[in-house]
Amino acid sequence: MVEMAEIVCRIKSHLPPLKVERVSLPEAVGRIVAEDLFAPEDVPSYPRSAMDGYAVRAEDIAAASRENPVILTVVDQIPAGSAPQRPLGKGEAAAIATGAPMPEGADTVVRVEDTKPVNPSDHPFVPVGEKVAILVATPKGKNVSPVGEDVRKGELIAAKGQKVTPALIGLLAACGFFELPVFTRPSAAVIPTGNELVAVAETPSIGQVRNSTAWAIAAALQECGVKPSVFEPVRDDVDELSRRFEEAISDFDLVLTCGGISAGQSDLVKEAWKRLGAKVIFGHLPLRPGKAFLAVTWEGKLALGLSGNAAAALTTFDLILRPALCEWSGNELGKFVTINAEISAPVSQVNGFLKALRVKLEQRGGKLLAHPLKGQLSTVLSSLAQSDGYALIPPGNGNLEAGTKVTVLARTGKIALLSEWLTNGT
Amino acid sequence: MVEMAEIVCRIKSHLPPLKVERVSLPEAVGRIVAEDLFAPEDVPSYPRSAMDGYAVRAEDIAAASRENPVILTVVDQIPAGSAPQRPLGKGEAAAIATGAPMPEGADTVVRVEDTKPVNPSDHPFVPVGEKVAILVATPKGKNVSPVGEDVRKGELIAAKGQKVTPALIGLLAACGFFELPVFTRPSAAVIPTGNELVAVAETPSIGQVRNSTAWAIAAALQECGVKPSVFEPVRDDVDELSRRFEEAISDFDLVLTCGGISAGQSDLVKEAWKRLGAKVIFGHLPLRPGKAFLAVTWEGKLALGLSGNAAAALTTFDLILRPALCEWSGNELGKFVTINAEISAPVSQVNGFLKALRVKLEQRGGKLLAHPLKGQLSTVLSSLAQSDGYALIPPGNGNLEAGTKVTVLARTGKIALLSEWLTNGT
Repeated sequence: MVEMAEIVCRIKSHLPPLKVERVSLPEAVGRIVAEDLFAPEDVPSYPRSAMDGYAVRAEDIAAASRENPVILTVVDQIPAGSAPQRPLGKGEAAAIATGAPMPEGADTVVRVEDTKPVNPSDHPFVPVGEKVAILVATPKGKNVSPVGEDVRKGELIAAKGQKVTPALIGLLAACGFFELPVFTRPSAAVIPTGNELVAVAETPSIGQVRNSTAWAIAAALQECGVKPSVFEPVRDDVDELSRRFEEAISDFDLVLTCGGISAGQSDLVKEAWKRLGAKVIFGHLPLRPGKAFLAVTWEGKLALGLSGNAAAALTTFDLILRPALCEWSGNELGKFVTINAEISAPVSQVNGFLKALRVKLEQRGGKLLAHPLKGQLSTVLSSLAQSDGYALIPPGNGNLEAGTKVTVLARTGKIALLSEWLTNGT
Repeated sequence: MVEMAEIVCRIKSHLPPLKVERVSLPEAVGRIVAEDLFAPEDVPSYPRSAMDGYAVRAEDIAAASRENPVILTVVDQIPAGSAPQRPLGKGEAAAIATGAPMPEGADTVVRVEDTKPVNPSDHPFVPVGEKVAILVATPKGKNVSPVGEDVRKGELIAAKGQKVTPALIGLLAACGFFELPVFTRPSAAVIPTGNELVAVAETPSIGQVRNSTAWAIAAALQECGVKPSVFEPVRDDVDELSRRFEEAISDFDLVLTCGGISAGQSDLVKEAWKRLGAKVIFGHLPLRPGKAFLAVTWEGKLALGLSGNAAAALTTFDLILRPALCEWSGNELGKFVTINAEISAPVSQVNGFLKALRVKLEQRGGKLLAHPLKGQLSTVLSSLAQSDGYALIPPGNGNLEAGTKVTVLARTGKIALLSEWLTNGT
């Protein structure tokens, strides 16, 4: 049996490289930096105060204490947004706000809490011409942000491949980047196939079903950072299928189809791709549900065929496509987490197939339990909608007893629970 | 010292309830269902085949085996999207596709793999009028999805408060919901304050800085599922501040300000809120960096004041606001995870303050190590941009030795690493 990890790896290797686009800073949140970015200037570009207080010369106040304060004359007031009016001489101080530029001659800031106006009516800030008592011998350089403290000119501030976080947004803004190069969000065509499909808003007559799988897959693509475009359903006709596939592959980074890949007479998706000259990489998977699968390459692009059945299509997606697509788009939040849990009821194995069992997770008595849900058939979607993830039951002929440790692939939405379990349960 | 968890809880209790809006199905991915939704019909609404094969009467084939096949006459072909042409009588079968409706009289589907055309040229499907050999005594009801197998009419399919996952999208589509009620994404005004601020695209002169904190906070809000609107910077003027706050509170679900909340002369944000008659809930936090904090309520809304300093503002945001806002918006993916790790270097505590230490995580020798980064000052943002999260150093007078276990609040982007560590490292 081919390992799932190997299949994911092979799928990933066929995903085309992403283009680069320039976006404005606010649009870049969560995107992936496409080029190394270097600081065009020092940040801060001038020495500034890190506190509200008084800019001083450290040597003037070396002997200061609460018992024996040093008295300085206030010669300037430097609020935020202003430049100093004059340099500082011996025995002088300047009232200074957080972030304001240091006056020439000053090397240290004494916090306002460590000072006292000589004239009590000057509280809290002493005006120019009046005196301030320094109560603490603040060491030289204290409470001053020197030039380049945060970033030096020419320093790497964001590496190619790095995710744009809020802190990086702040740093880029401070460095003057109002736009930056990021990788494009990949696009995918989602093509529902089958004569039986009608629109969601329609009432199906006997033999018809609503087009639900394509919308479920489009939602899953969104979670992976891929922009989906859902096509109108295509009828089971090889010519028509080939035509739509040809259009889709030229307009999108990836093509997914739903339906038309099992053993029946109307399962013409593979034939339509072959007619175009596409090369088949995978024809099915050792997975239940989710065995029906098709992967082909054509014109340097990848096309993937999923079951027409929403539960089967989503299982294939979550186990095989989700990890590959999240790495492609750089949206690791779309990934599921793997975690160990105990199954709470006996489970039968399937020979030659990895069984993806829909489970609900529960913390109980320091353990993480995985409860198999009712309705595990590939035709049942409601259990998947209620589940927290999949317990992965390895291939075999036997039964796993209740209490057996299994690997669970869980939605990251369960992270709060998992996180708590991590901190308290191990 | 007030516990952080208690502060988060109090902040949460003041967030206003969210409105309800109807959105189309594809727009609902990741949103929170605002009303209980019940199935308007059975799914499936008619019994259908779960396999490609032959619809039969189980009693006709009870004795079938590969050695002694039962021969049936094919009287109908039911491809996907079609209705049966006639009911099935004794000794009759209908070729049927996955998802196609069962003919009247039939109760079971035999998989095509368990059948054989009597005339070999009929492979793979036997035409009407010809005979098919049934090789397996398939039990009654097998490979048939009965009416309501997935969902019964009137059954709860999505509960108020539930997150819309891809599987739920599929289920809602199958039930005919082309739009649904969800909670609105909350909106927030982000108001930068300070005379020193210039736009990101401008070159600051001495005393000026680029408006970076508001953009960093806007990015963090986006991660929490809150829609930010960044205002033009407001000058340090109580009248002007009050005016903008009044506008913002009527137009947005939440108001955040950056700057103007420390001890300096220009720190007028609190005064501006008080002038409007707002009630102060918190005036500062036992947190470093991130001590500067203001929370007020007014007109049933909450307004939060953060430091003008991006690193301090983000630390306050990540520890206090992020968990509260993610629960408010229902976007749990924006939460950080708490995990235990060992600090790799000695760390000093701060008396009376929780210290949020920026760390890089690394797995080494079955351990998870938290490396303190260079540049922990609140004026330094670059270390925060490189960090994986915060090691939480409890208040105290001492030093924690290298190797001490600490709680780390990590970005969920580190989930792959954490997940691997979980599976292999414990």
